[in-house]
Amino acid sequence: MRISKLSERAGLPVGTVKFYLRSGLLHPGLATSATQALYDETHLARLRLIRAMLGVGRLSLAEIQRILDAIDLPVGDPEVRTSLVRAAIAGPDETPFDAHAEDAEVLSEMGWHISPDSPHLRTLMRALEAARSVGLSIDRSRLKTYAEAAAHVARSDQAELDSLPDAERPQALAASLVLLDPILSALRRLAGEHVATVNQGRVPGPRVSNA
Amino acid sequence: MRISKLSERAGLPVGTVKFYLRSGLLHPGLATSATQALYDETHLARLRLIRAMLGVGRLSLAEIQRILDAIDLPVGDPEVRTSLVRAAIAGPDETPFDAHAEDAEVLSEMGWHISPDSPHLRTLMRALEAARSVGLSIDRSRLKTYAEAAAHVARSDQAELDSLPDAERPQALAASLVLLDPILSALRRLAGEHVATVNQGRVPGPRVSNA
Repeated sequence: MRISKLSERAGLPVGTVKFYLRSGLLHPGLATSATQALYDETHLARLRLIRAMLGVGRLSLAEIQRILDAIDLPVGDPEVRTSLVRAAIAGPDETPFDAHAEDAEVLSEMGWHISPDSPHLRTLMRALEAARSVGLSIDRSRLKTYAEAAAHVARSDQAELDSLPDAERPQALAASLVLLDPILSALRRLAGEHVATVNQGRVPGPRVSNA
Repeated sequence: MRISKLSERAGLPVGTVKFYLRSGLLHPGLATSATQALYDETHLARLRLIRAMLGVGRLSLAEIQRILDAIDLPVGDPEVRTSLVRAAIAGPDETPFDAHAEDAEVLSEMGWHISPDSPHLRTLMRALEAARSVGLSIDRSRLKTYAEAAAHVARSDQAELDSLPDAERPQALAASLVLLDPILSALRRLAGEHVATVNQGRVPGPRVSNA
């Protein structure tokens, strides 16, 4: 398809598509003349991913570039590919963090097999530090509640990833790591609204809503 | 304390603190002369909240301003105050969304008491739309898994909020809505690493990690 059709199907202005082509976020089309090229479903899929990560995923173009680069790396070993995607999503971070021994213990009690230099461990410790700096008390039992909820979700996500062919997995992994967060966040806020309403005694207890 | 001490304790440059004062994100101190003022623990707490929301929380200054404005509203009714904070966090959004009947059914089956015009419902529907646009298949059973995990977390968060005095609740609610997301996100990624490793058969099953 021509760039006009591509931009229409992706729901983006032609100028934006051209910018993504120039900046390397979108791979070139098949040139048919000095000024024209043809694009296919891979271009459309890539544009939808960029759009979702930029919008709902709240990532910057630089972060998206880093993640797309990792997805596109010509690495044969699927395990290495997924670990590169994970590292790209966690991002570079040189700031040292203070791991509370108690936090590490909770993860250990969960029986999780985690590399001590996992980039997500660093992200977790920094997020815990920030939440505690504003007075949120996240003790052992609360962290365990969160970890259980996370494990419940991760098992379901992995089952979905396992059902895909090897070639599609890095992109699906990136999409699920970035784009399920806003879904879980909105669900937690909705659940919070429900729990708060029940606690205020306005409704006698859980009931079927009209929403 | 003087501004130099305040900035030191908040871990922010004096210029940044002055910028927050000028832009109204931080309330004025008690003026002791034309050029000097004294600050207290409320200023420090506010700076820590701004810093955490800007950093780990990934919010913009405009979003933070909107949330702080809601926290500071002189509204007596605690229920109204928390609903204003929730609305400020969800943000304005005029884009119409397509709610899938099946998604709404899942929430209804959870027994959640949710207002049909809850701002978080809108956020959820938009996030689901974005995730599906890149090919993630989020069917009824997967959404239910997420909703269960969210409910598990929300109950624990509400217990924490209920333990606080009324005056502190709006700020604690805002902090927990914004700053627990990165913690849950990191935990989900860590759990995902564990599940992927187990699935690849590199370890015989869940085991205690050295992390």
